[in-house]
Amino acid sequence: MSETKALATYLVNSRLEDIPQDVRHEARRALLNYIGCAVGGAREPAVETALRSLTPFFGKPTAGLIARTERMDPLYASVINGISSHVFEYDDTMPRNYIHPTPPVATAVFTYATANRVSGRDFVHAFLLGFETEARVGNAVYPAHYEAGWHITSTAGVFGAAAAIGKLLGLSTQQMIWALGLAATQASGLREMFGYMAKSFHAGHAARNGYASAVMAQSNFTAGERGIESPRGFAAVTASKYDLSEITNGLCSHFQIRYNAYKPYPCGLVVHPAIDGCIDLYRDYHPAPDAIKAVRVRVAPLVMDLCNKKDITRGLEGKYSIYHSSAVGLVRGKAGLQEYTDEAVNDPLVKRVRERVTAISDTSITEDQAHIEVELQDGRKLVRFIEQSLGNVHRPLSDKQLEEKLRDQCMLTLSSGQVDKLIELCWNIDELDDVNEVVKATVRS
Amino acid sequence: MSETKALATYLVNSRLEDIPQDVRHEARRALLNYIGCAVGGAREPAVETALRSLTPFFGKPTAGLIARTERMDPLYASVINGISSHVFEYDDTMPRNYIHPTPPVATAVFTYATANRVSGRDFVHAFLLGFETEARVGNAVYPAHYEAGWHITSTAGVFGAAAAIGKLLGLSTQQMIWALGLAATQASGLREMFGYMAKSFHAGHAARNGYASAVMAQSNFTAGERGIESPRGFAAVTASKYDLSEITNGLCSHFQIRYNAYKPYPCGLVVHPAIDGCIDLYRDYHPAPDAIKAVRVRVAPLVMDLCNKKDITRGLEGKYSIYHSSAVGLVRGKAGLQEYTDEAVNDPLVKRVRERVTAISDTSITEDQAHIEVELQDGRKLVRFIEQSLGNVHRPLSDKQLEEKLRDQCMLTLSSGQVDKLIELCWNIDELDDVNEVVKATVRS
Repeated sequence: MSETKALATYLVNSRLEDIPQDVRHEARRALLNYIGCAVGGAREPAVETALRSLTPFFGKPTAGLIARTERMDPLYASVINGISSHVFEYDDTMPRNYIHPTPPVATAVFTYATANRVSGRDFVHAFLLGFETEARVGNAVYPAHYEAGWHITSTAGVFGAAAAIGKLLGLSTQQMIWALGLAATQASGLREMFGYMAKSFHAGHAARNGYASAVMAQSNFTAGERGIESPRGFAAVTASKYDLSEITNGLCSHFQIRYNAYKPYPCGLVVHPAIDGCIDLYRDYHPAPDAIKAVRVRVAPLVMDLCNKKDITRGLEGKYSIYHSSAVGLVRGKAGLQEYTDEAVNDPLVKRVRERVTAISDTSITEDQAHIEVELQDGRKLVRFIEQSLGNVHRPLSDKQLEEKLRDQCMLTLSSGQVDKLIELCWNIDELDDVNEVVKATVRS
Repeated sequence: MSETKALATYLVNSRLEDIPQDVRHEARRALLNYIGCAVGGAREPAVETALRSLTPFFGKPTAGLIARTERMDPLYASVINGISSHVFEYDDTMPRNYIHPTPPVATAVFTYATANRVSGRDFVHAFLLGFETEARVGNAVYPAHYEAGWHITSTAGVFGAAAAIGKLLGLSTQQMIWALGLAATQASGLREMFGYMAKSFHAGHAARNGYASAVMAQSNFTAGERGIESPRGFAAVTASKYDLSEITNGLCSHFQIRYNAYKPYPCGLVVHPAIDGCIDLYRDYHPAPDAIKAVRVRVAPLVMDLCNKKDITRGLEGKYSIYHSSAVGLVRGKAGLQEYTDEAVNDPLVKRVRERVTAISDTSITEDQAHIEVELQDGRKLVRFIEQSLGNVHRPLSDKQLEEKLRDQCMLTLSSGQVDKLIELCWNIDELDDVNEVVKATVRS
């Protein structure tokens, strides 16, 4: 059986009862983290600008937004919610393929749930199937696809959104095959957009196009039936090497969400070990910025590939700068949302230290590790090696830490009572009669 | 100067007065041909199905459709008009890169003109700039991009739509750069969809996404500024070989629309020489279908790559079948719209001859040529070599033939008086105060 058909068959026949409890708890963690990110990002310029430009095109106000009161049709609402959830670069990451998996899929299903009554059980089930689809399509084409320059969150995300909405719509196997084909032919998103508003648009673009794929397939809009595996399908066209067995091996038992990771810092995952090291040094020595003569960071090669932005002036660029991230760790002892604003990037103290950071690609260092050496004006050297960064799969954020992260993101928008309520709703999402309760709870009352 | 910036600068500064009259006449020919295709396709199942599935999401009815009375927002209207214009495979083709260039660009600008008053001069200017952009982006990445499996009409088309709408919106150079970046990151469409409704969706998808790119850029939604040429831009990511000089060389003098071709038959351009040969043999010998023992067709290798569908049951599949196209030429002496219906594909006489066609890839035969040998039951052999197919750039359809083609496509929908009016409007489009006159004239009165 072809991979697209096998996947579609699984999606259509899957039952929530067959999914283990630990996997369902990972879904709750991913959804809680998603909601925090989307609330935190919902007032960012990328969101405001997209809203301003697209409002004239919005359809009937049947759907709602996370942390905002505007209403519109669910496809445009998906675009906006997707941007909110991804813009802070604070979302989850699959270390195996560098997908930020929850934004495209959760955006589609939460938005669907604002326009259609969906029970918590159906919602979590659809989300998990979408997550699994996206992660497996990503695993099949990673790393060649990512190295070529595709933003895999966007290109694999559209499959996940199509699968999840297809499940909620109750598509037949034939329709699910078409939905995956329509997703394949709409898969796009370039890494060239990193550092620009277009990057966060990708999450909304993937959610919207996946959602529309399922809707069109439900009306029997036909598409190529081997959209993933054919010689002119998604895998072959977008990756010089790929492994289709990743799509089907262990489907229904080897759940990919078990390998999901949550970021403690709102920036590219690969710079996190360096941040850990710099924060450690700040905590232990409190070096005055003026006293820092040089900072030498040794990191995995991928860091230099992804986060080598040096001359920067905007907060968004800071998220892709190993130099900036190291500097804020050393100067401020933290790397939270306030460290990636335009203000922080132009803070003279941060800038001064940033200009003294050099970063070296070192193949002996893994993507969870970093080596930091700070040379002071008085000749002293402060050294730290991070063996395993916080938030990686071997050192995961606890449920409590995820709650704290959500609190930090919602602090400026919601009252503490509202945040408590939101956290409670997320942990009990399976039991809700109507998932729109969660979205409603994100809006300031 | 980077290619994206050079192109954006040209687009922003271009004046219609600087574009030669023969180029402007080619624009009128392309637009007339487009209108005929869109009227002809406007009741196809792909259009009806897309409308049925997407209607709940439509925005305010500020825009209209070609040959239909429904109204909606201009972005979804672009999706629908794009499907109508491309679904019959009767649209124009650039033999240099196999783009069907007019559907994505004309769809965007005609749809814009239904929602905003646009003069004929501004309209033709924007269309020509969009066409030029799309053709040049296509030239830069062809053939590697196409051979990899990208449907280049879709992937290059989104740039053309963005450029054309960007011109109508009066974007600044910076905004035009962002619009091209947003187009780059939304470029998608797989050849795997050929023979399915998803293929015609590509034209609407490209038009809609290009249109939205320009709209978002106008609000300063930022995107990568080297979207075409950067190592992670469109060209490098989607083509193993590319030539960026194609973007800028001869810009403002060497207009690509001069190399545009119009199809006499509503199917893949590469099978046209074989159809010419089969129609010639029908005209000269009228072989009875029962008398045909074998048909041997020698064609350029690309024909076998694109149009090798043998066991077919649907009209859409017939458009990608060298076997079916040869058979209708021999059995019916023509290859018009009625030869690519489900009925024609299942016609027992056509089917009988189709099953006797063998096609051989021959590297000595160009893509404008075909060699046909029909062996009859009595041992006679009928042979024809087509040196230059009808409709190619060296043997173009005349203005009169384009009019006849439009008449054929509009016959079932419009009265003869309405068709005369429509043809007159297309030839005089530059002089209209409001291009929406053309779209209004496509609707049955």
